[in-house]
Amino acid sequence: MWYENKVTQDLNIKYPIVQAGMAGGITTPELVAAVSNSGGLGSLGAGYMSSEQTRESIRKVKQLTDKPFGVNLFIPETPDVSEDELKKANEWLQPFREKLGISEKTEVKKPTATLFEQQMEIIMEERVPVCSFTFDVPSKETVQQLKTGNIMVIGTATTVKEAIANEENGVDMVVVQGSEAGGHRGTFMGSFEEAMIGTMALVPQTVDQVNIPVIAAGGIMDGRGVLAALILGAQAVQMGTAFVTSIESGAKEQHKEAILNSTEEQPVITSAFSGKPARGIQNDFITKMAKHETELPKYPIQNTLTKTIRSEAAKQNRPEWMSLWCGQNPRSSKHLSASKVISDIVSQVDDIVKHIETRG
Amino acid sequence: MWYENKVTQDLNIKYPIVQAGMAGGITTPELVAAVSNSGGLGSLGAGYMSSEQTRESIRKVKQLTDKPFGVNLFIPETPDVSEDELKKANEWLQPFREKLGISEKTEVKKPTATLFEQQMEIIMEERVPVCSFTFDVPSKETVQQLKTGNIMVIGTATTVKEAIANEENGVDMVVVQGSEAGGHRGTFMGSFEEAMIGTMALVPQTVDQVNIPVIAAGGIMDGRGVLAALILGAQAVQMGTAFVTSIESGAKEQHKEAILNSTEEQPVITSAFSGKPARGIQNDFITKMAKHETELPKYPIQNTLTKTIRSEAAKQNRPEWMSLWCGQNPRSSKHLSASKVISDIVSQVDDIVKHIETRG
Repeated sequence: MWYENKVTQDLNIKYPIVQAGMAGGITTPELVAAVSNSGGLGSLGAGYMSSEQTRESIRKVKQLTDKPFGVNLFIPETPDVSEDELKKANEWLQPFREKLGISEKTEVKKPTATLFEQQMEIIMEERVPVCSFTFDVPSKETVQQLKTGNIMVIGTATTVKEAIANEENGVDMVVVQGSEAGGHRGTFMGSFEEAMIGTMALVPQTVDQVNIPVIAAGGIMDGRGVLAALILGAQAVQMGTAFVTSIESGAKEQHKEAILNSTEEQPVITSAFSGKPARGIQNDFITKMAKHETELPKYPIQNTLTKTIRSEAAKQNRPEWMSLWCGQNPRSSKHLSASKVISDIVSQVDDIVKHIETRG
Repeated sequence: MWYENKVTQDLNIKYPIVQAGMAGGITTPELVAAVSNSGGLGSLGAGYMSSEQTRESIRKVKQLTDKPFGVNLFIPETPDVSEDELKKANEWLQPFREKLGISEKTEVKKPTATLFEQQMEIIMEERVPVCSFTFDVPSKETVQQLKTGNIMVIGTATTVKEAIANEENGVDMVVVQGSEAGGHRGTFMGSFEEAMIGTMALVPQTVDQVNIPVIAAGGIMDGRGVLAALILGAQAVQMGTAFVTSIESGAKEQHKEAILNSTEEQPVITSAFSGKPARGIQNDFITKMAKHETELPKYPIQNTLTKTIRSEAAKQNRPEWMSLWCGQNPRSSKHLSASKVISDIVSQVDDIVKHIETRG
């Protein structure tokens, strides 16, 4: 059958559909478990979770499913930031804070790798079946550590050379993130602009250059996209936006609504929310901050600085100041249960395959 | 069979493969005829041709094939340019002219629609089977005129709303140009940045919103891309870069070499050569002109200003100052005859289809 391949075999899942490990409360244990229970690979986005939250969420997922699932981690970045950079960024953010009535100052600590190390330990202890990474390639030591625990390792790449770097460090499979993808860019070699490669071009070129299985991401929202990606040579797809609007998703209602009402030109690339380029629906925050983009503190500093703005904006129902991550195919988004998202994809692919069999 | 659909039927071709009507000497009558003789739709890129060249080339194609072929026209743009803009642009171009020993001044005439009207007459008189357009939607009158001559009309769009605008004006089918595509962007509504939608996302969203057949373009270089595009809902593909490096292509040797040796990150978007955003392989000209991008005279003025630079650079073998148009999938490029490009695609699709039939 079309869904039987090395990825489904190695991950021990039925369908080659990975739910992206989106951070920021979107990937509730309910969503992760629903995807896994429906034959895909649910993934917990632990990027912004504390170690306690990480362990708790993993345990919750385990209560809800006995199927394989993944945890997605951010490879830590520990940039320096000057007082002057911080001061300027705070000045630019002040108008939003004022409008939202935020008075407390945001404290910025020097980012460290401590959380990442704790999360890695938890993943080993909890025997999480799959661990995926983004924002950089996991080190050979990290990969080796996970392999001693029989944990499958998935990397993320936005160019062929990044995919090769992942393969060289020993990951089992690699997600290639096309320019259509919503949320943060995974680029870690060279400039992100150069690494904005469309899925249609990125998948076949990567497949031809690496020996590990490739998982296609970016612009895939339904059975047409899934089968197209498989034909391009991918052995699975990773879908984010399609699950953000699902019933089990923990995304804010305004976020879901924005995606369901968006067209393909509205999700733009911005660094304004986090200091790292990401695709989200254009709004007042992105527009107003655009002129400062190149001078903002690096990720994760800027992310910390905008945290209360984003959460207060959600509470006060001001989507114009929220980060509305979304890929370039929002017209295909639907508000369905995760299991229905997957069963719709499977029957659509089944239909297309049947059609091909009939016509030749 | 997989290649039988409304597009192949209406265009009276065997395979749903359109060779892009690239301007600038790439689409020799030999290339156009070779593609048509191999079962695809060859297209003459008449955008920069004089009316004499247009008629001559059409007649030459007719001598070489009795199969359907197309002519691609640029909908004329007639921007104003100030003396100051011209002066500045000439100053920025002067270093390149000096290095190439170009002493004569480039004369810039106010662009008019006269050539376009003459080309339309020639297409009617010569009974060209297919006429395609880019840079804007053809007017209802233009479409009507062609239909009285039983000429099939193909439009170009980079967003869903542009595809709808084409449908509303009566075109028979529409090429949707994904962000991966090489050469000039066809965007005519809104900013080109917003209209950089990956093929994987653009095709299904357009197919769901228009009733006319969609032809997918951008990043498609082989049978995998062709079948993937058909599965996304397109009824044909348009391929440019894959034919630039073909034996019959009139592209300069340095252009072919550059594509054959390029990787996916090298083709970038630049307005430096023509005043209109286009994707070409990064080189010294693009890098040096980058800081002036927003102040350049509009297309086609800037195109006129850089014309001798581009042609002298080719003569003097300085590819660093040539426009090396290329899409985001150059790793898949090959130096083959156009007929071999097509027969390789067809057998690759046949193989994949057979594989699907066997596996289900």
